[in-house]
Amino acid sequence: MYYPIQGTNMTTPRVATVAPVPEESATGKVAEIYADIKRTKGIAFVPNMWRVLATNPDHLELVWTRLKALMHPEAVGRPARLDPRTREIIALAVSATNGCAYCVNSHTAALRKLGMDVETLGEVLAIVGLFNSTNALADGYQIEPDVLPPLE
Amino acid sequence: MYYPIQGTNMTTPRVATVAPVPEESATGKVAEIYADIKRTKGIAFVPNMWRVLATNPDHLELVWTRLKALMHPEAVGRPARLDPRTREIIALAVSATNGCAYCVNSHTAALRKLGMDVETLGEVLAIVGLFNSTNALADGYQIEPDVLPPLE
Amino acid sequence: MYYPIQGTNMTTPRVATVAPVPEESATGKVAEIYADIKRTKGIAFVPNMWRVLATNPDHLELVWTRLKALMHPEAVGRPARLDPRTREIIALAVSATNGCAYCVNSHTAALRKLGMDVETLGEVLAIVGLFNSTNALADGYQIEPDVLPPLE
Amino acid sequence: MYYPIQGTNMTTPRVATVAPVPEESATGKVAEIYADIKRTKGIAFVPNMWRVLATNPDHLELVWTRLKALMHPEAVGRPARLDPRTREIIALAVSATNGCAYCVNSHTAALRKLGMDVETLGEVLAIVGLFNSTNALADGYQIEPDVLPPLE
Amino acid sequence: MYYPIQGTNMTTPRVATVAPVPEESATGKVAEIYADIKRTKGIAFVPNMWRVLATNPDHLELVWTRLKALMHPEAVGRPARLDPRTREIIALAVSATNGCAYCVNSHTAALRKLGMDVETLGEVLAIVGLFNSTNALADGYQIEPDVLPPLE
Amino acid sequence: MYYPIQGTNMTTPRVATVAPVPEESATGKVAEIYADIKRTKGIAFVPNMWRVLATNPDHLELVWTRLKALMHPEAVGRPARLDPRTREIIALAVSATNGCAYCVNSHTAALRKLGMDVETLGEVLAIVGLFNSTNALADGYQIEPDVLPPLE
Repeated sequence: MYYPIQGTNMTTPRVATVAPVPEESATGKVAEIYADIKRTKGIAFVPNMWRVLATNPDHLELVWTRLKALMHPEAVGRPARLDPRTREIIALAVSATNGCAYCVNSHTAALRKLGMDVETLGEVLAIVGLFNSTNALADGYQIEPDVLPPLE
Repeated sequence: MYYPIQGTNMTTPRVATVAPVPEESATGKVAEIYADIKRTKGIAFVPNMWRVLATNPDHLELVWTRLKALMHPEAVGRPARLDPRTREIIALAVSATNGCAYCVNSHTAALRKLGMDVETLGEVLAIVGLFNSTNALADGYQIEPDVLPPLE
Repeated sequence: MYYPIQGTNMTTPRVATVAPVPEESATGKVAEIYADIKRTKGIAFVPNMWRVLATNPDHLELVWTRLKALMHPEAVGRPARLDPRTREIIALAVSATNGCAYCVNSHTAALRKLGMDVETLGEVLAIVGLFNSTNALADGYQIEPDVLPPLE
Repeated sequence: MYYPIQGTNMTTPRVATVAPVPEESATGKVAEIYADIKRTKGIAFVPNMWRVLATNPDHLELVWTRLKALMHPEAVGRPARLDPRTREIIALAVSATNGCAYCVNSHTAALRKLGMDVETLGEVLAIVGLFNSTNALADGYQIEPDVLPPLE
Repeated sequence: MYYPIQGTNMTTPRVATVAPVPEESATGKVAEIYADIKRTKGIAFVPNMWRVLATNPDHLELVWTRLKALMHPEAVGRPARLDPRTREIIALAVSATNGCAYCVNSHTAALRKLGMDVETLGEVLAIVGLFNSTNALADGYQIEPDVLPPLE
Repeated sequence: MYYPIQGTNMTTPRVATVAPVPEESATGKVAEIYADIKRTKGIAFVPNMWRVLATNPDHLELVWTRLKALMHPEAVGRPARLDPRTREIIALAVSATNGCAYCVNSHTAALRKLGMDVETLGEVLAIVGLFNSTNALADGYQIEPDVLPPLE
């Protein structure tokens, strides 16, 4: 009843722990969101992330709605305080810190698409590396905060 | 031989697991780095972080040299590809993801000093929160990367 | 311009890196969400978490909308597949793994309110502890997955 | 003396940083534990995790004893306060938060074997994602706990 | 029914999300383990960690049994391959990386008790900081492993 | 403009999100550091880690300088307080806790090269697993530190 890798039909490679919902079989809410993702992001296919989330359509909607509001504010008429490059830099910093393979790849791709060269990418990751180091030091010494932001 | 909290002299509150090196007793390399930190950052006191690192002067030097090169590039004559605000945004994104109290406070303070208002701070953290969520989803489903950056 | 702890007026203790929006000064969207939080959760005050998020009203709305949909599905007419106790157990497992003080406290409080006794809480955390251990072992040995879920 | 991937004999694919102990060559304590794992879990083979741990038999015993006590309480005559499905949900929540590939696969497999459908799996991970997000927000704003569990 | 901090009787400060089991009221298995902890560790009181775990006696036993076997091997007649100082260094490295306040304090205390001076402690944490940095870089660039351990 | 895995020329397998700088095309500072890495570490090729960092030469220099000072102190004439085996044990403990595939492989390789057998490696990881577990427990119960190191 378990599924050892040996016994798996490996002709179709696995892309996740569940089978993604193919674009051609999507209907109703899933089909609408797939179309919105492609239109909003200007891409020709629906990435694995969204096709996996579609296995629970309510969840797909919750994640897409929130990501669209924050990462594509112009598409929902929300004035944004950060530009697209800064937003993707945050995404990469978080993903590198968490070590998320899918996310590091897709946010690096987004930054390159926005025109970032590899030297600048190196500077982003250098700073990510630096603060993962100082975070471990501050926590490893249990240092009390003494540089505090103003409250007004 | 253990040091339960009850038995501790609490008139001087603890700021770390080691006693920081006070500014007035710093000599040699430590005194020079303390002076450089205050001059480079334009601050009037040496924060706990550096006074704790000073318990191992070589380590203080390694951390300060690297942080100065990356976060104060003008002070070492290095052309920077990212502006100070973006650098501090990365620092906050990493620190929030790691849950480092000292670091969240000091980098939020730095962003406020650079002029960031609380609404924009909220947008930074909203995006940090969003990608901590999608990172857990991509990893929780073990989704294979399919949006990859170009290699040239 | 920095705000060392010594120089801070400590008569009002800090509750966050920003000043929370008090209930009595909330207006418009924030006031509506505050009322919805109290009504939906059946509580008499607005916890710090929400009063801090309210410093960016759009962000408050995004987080509350999502949390309400997932944790209070009956309030939005969504049929839930998990019961409230299981949902809070997940919240505690994630929060303990991340070491989030605010979240561990509030989700433990929620579980106790739902009737969980300390022995059962101990079993939840024992299992959280066990898998934080085996996760480190599987990653520490870089073990290839061989027990895989079915894809149909 | 180093072992670059180019120089490795790749006809036997690597499953870990050490060579697992095959079932057919297991003797003594390791053979007994292998038999107990298969009997207790009702499976026909010993997964990689246990075959890797067997490279240090004392360690194999410590991990198996603890996991058996917590995840198979009926096998040791311990009354459990949580049911098997809740226990595996905790395991998945922790593993997704830590991003452990081996563990996410095996605990998703266990949940599917216990009858969980993909929609419910989606709800579990949606809640895992939600609280990874709010954890980052609570830590990113350094919010003081104000919803505390009772102590009696 | 919630327990806001304002409404709490703060004359007895909280030490955890549950009330620890006092030494004087411990009976049966808990009393035996408390005695064993004090005897094995050569300390005069039972630290909070164990008094909190005692709220679920089975869990207390599981954690103590495992920690005793690994950290006090001489007490169980197990030959150890690592010395006490190296074991505590590992404990600190893990705790600093996870940012666990209780653990960083107690393992730093243990290292100091074993004779480590603050300069050496600084070298331990410098290396912890270094590899938290390079981990973020290797993950942030998604670098394929090419330096692999031998399998025989 | 996106780069789905299907469309990628897979004859040259990807080793990172950027193309590493080959040894044969390295010039100037990069070539010097490549030579120093091979000489200092006594290896015949430049591992992926360094060839990827070389896409931003300043960053390569910062990371190598720091790693050399801490992990190869004899090469810079710095007296070290920890021996090479202890330093690599710390590196593995951090890397296993963070789940970094590249780092776990390379530090396990380094420990094996230093003569560590798999039983001892198992003891290292057993202790790493133990404290990832107790860290989650201490944080999951929010236990106040009561075993504190001395400050003098």
